Amino acid sequence: MGAVVTIDPADLLARLIACPSVTPEEAGALDLLQAELEAIGFAVTRLRFEGDGSYPVDNLFATRGQGGRRLLFAGHTDVVPPGDTAHWTSDPFEPRIADGKMFGRGAADMKSGIAAFVAACAAIPPEAGTICLAITNDEEADAINGTEKLVAWMNENGHAFDFAIVGEPSSTETLGDSIKIGRRGSFSGKVTVTGTQGHVAYPHKANNPLPVLAAVATALSSERLDAGTEHFPASNLELTTIDVGNPVSNVIPMSGTLRFNIRYNDIWTPETLADWVRARIDSVDARGTRIDFALAGAPSRAFLSPLGSDVETLSAVIAERNGRPPEYSTGGGTSDARFIAEYGPVVECGLVGPSMHKADEHIALSDLTGLAEIYTAFMRRFFGSAS
Amino acid sequence: MGAVVTIDPADLLARLIACPSVTPEEAGALDLLQAELEAIGFAVTRLRFEGDGSYPVDNLFATRGQGGRRLLFAGHTDVVPPGDTAHWTSDPFEPRIADGKMFGRGAADMKSGIAAFVAACAAIPPEAGTICLAITNDEEADAINGTEKLVAWMNENGHAFDFAIVGEPSSTETLGDSIKIGRRGSFSGKVTVTGTQGHVAYPHKANNPLPVLAAVATALSSERLDAGTEHFPASNLELTTIDVGNPVSNVIPMSGTLRFNIRYNDIWTPETLADWVRARIDSVDARGTRIDFALAGAPSRAFLSPLGSDVETLSAVIAERNGRPPEYSTGGGTSDARFIAEYGPVVECGLVGPSMHKADEHIALSDLTGLAEIYTAFMRRFFGSAS
Repeated sequence: MGAVVTIDPADLLARLIACPSVTPEEAGALDLLQAELEAIGFAVTRLRFEGDGSYPVDNLFATRGQGGRRLLFAGHTDVVPPGDTAHWTSDPFEPRIADGKMFGRGAADMKSGIAAFVAACAAIPPEAGTICLAITNDEEADAINGTEKLVAWMNENGHAFDFAIVGEPSSTETLGDSIKIGRRGSFSGKVTVTGTQGHVAYPHKANNPLPVLAAVATALSSERLDAGTEHFPASNLELTTIDVGNPVSNVIPMSGTLRFNIRYNDIWTPETLADWVRARIDSVDARGTRIDFALAGAPSRAFLSPLGSDVETLSAVIAERNGRPPEYSTGGGTSDARFIAEYGPVVECGLVGPSMHKADEHIALSDLTGLAEIYTAFMRRFFGSAS
Repeated sequence: MGAVVTIDPADLLARLIACPSVTPEEAGALDLLQAELEAIGFAVTRLRFEGDGSYPVDNLFATRGQGGRRLLFAGHTDVVPPGDTAHWTSDPFEPRIADGKMFGRGAADMKSGIAAFVAACAAIPPEAGTICLAITNDEEADAINGTEKLVAWMNENGHAFDFAIVGEPSSTETLGDSIKIGRRGSFSGKVTVTGTQGHVAYPHKANNPLPVLAAVATALSSERLDAGTEHFPASNLELTTIDVGNPVSNVIPMSGTLRFNIRYNDIWTPETLADWVRARIDSVDARGTRIDFALAGAPSRAFLSPLGSDVETLSAVIAERNGRPPEYSTGGGTSDARFIAEYGPVVECGLVGPSMHKADEHIALSDLTGLAEIYTAFMRRFFGSAS
């Protein structure tokens, strides 16, 4: 049923790279994707989200099939700026093939993941089951009007899923050597201690906030948060800065501020972390100073996907290809998968990442074909006999 | 012997105020002083010191008499800038008399002390003993080419003294209510802790210097230096700033610096304080970081004059006038007396100070006359029967 269309992932990737979709400009990338998806039977909805202190962002939702199991693929068409183009061998937005590699901004992160998935979808009969795509054009910058709102919209509009794959470059050295099954969360805060300014010669007329600030710094950095979990290392707090800015040696300053960041595992939520921070601060003798604690920016939640049969299926597909299963990783920074994890199990599975965000970003064309084959093989097993 | 000359301290003060001798411009003040001193039998030597990272400064040394006891008077003709003259009732360099007060920049700090002492000298026979004056035109700014070099020059040239008076405004509310018999020293230092920069997500690849910096801050600020001495309060360390300047929340900084100032009593020298600081730092576990300690600027030494019979004589003169002896104070900031104290006993005894450095700086004319009388009465007893 439907027209038999095959899609060459390298051709699609080249056309996506040619769209200079630096956040938040979609620059034709979503238009191109829409046309490709409609050609293989997807219904496409374009969603522009805005507000909440950030710029408007174009997003794309696509769905094909009804009933059966429900697979969600998520990703982003936006790319980071190319930086100084003098460091590039050729124009970052003119796809170039050399030595079996394709070069261009977004080649690894993550237009290749999208190209491979769309190519895989073309090989799967529409009646196999339900496939959805949630593609944003802002993952690299604010990420406020992107995936978070897109998956919330999906939830409100009845587009549930049984399993989700994010096409971020999860492989470290060879295709499929690692998939990410979770991510640590990130929580930044600041603590300001305010005393009473004065002259160093008359300390009884002042109240120096800095000994208390030092005590808070010690209280926060000396106690371990946890010992780690099965799939995560121990949560960790780092003091990132302490600043007073008093230029003169004869004045006791009025206040000082420290900032910290916590990378935390699935034991914690931003709420329980804030409670932990407050308890640490409360353990310090304030000596008449005022101690204020505030979050710095929005924390990102930790997540760990349920390790069910779908993860095992993906692992088995990769193991059959590579001779060994992928590592189940929870390392690295944060990704949009944290938003998807609020609604169902999600893994990140994509190409080899090290060149991302750098000059001469590239992927191996054989890896691109290989990823399309992994996605296809996974979908056949995920959807079962119908495919 | 010699011409009988009397000097009106108010007249001399008015003429000194009329010289706009903002540091380092002597603006005629030392020329005027030289002429007045020569008129009452002093031999005057003008000394211009320069180098050591500061501007050249004019200084004046004067001596009269031979043999007998030796009294040194020290002070400065330079004044701080007037600031916004809109805050002054009249020109800061046009002496104005109103309500029994003389207004003008330097009226209190300390052209009045010089005028009173010169007037007192005119009333003492030259054969009474040896009187020296050491007057600099830079006490208010760098103080590098001023009193410190002047008293070193005196020492090298055989101008010793038995007792010294600095004419700084030592009185707090009424003339003679307080003389300063010593000053605390001031010692500023900085400590830099250097670790290894890195990403907060990969703390094992970094070494955060900030927990160590916080521990150093606590080590320095938590231990008492001493419990005070008979004439001094306890020495005291204040942390004045802690600065890292890391603007981003995902980076572990390479280094951080704290600065501190110690106001210390006569138990300590800059050398023993530096040893104390190093011992406190050594008590901290450096955890692989490098901890560097350095002085910040030149420390000023603490001094306490020997409380011998000359101080008692000065106190008795004041007590007979006021009905009560002056307080023996060691409070306030530093003064040039610290340089003089290296060579002999010194006290600060002058007018009422609170208006110094402010707009409409002034002294009471009756206090100026009173100070000249105190100096005269003191010298009569200091030199004994010969005067």
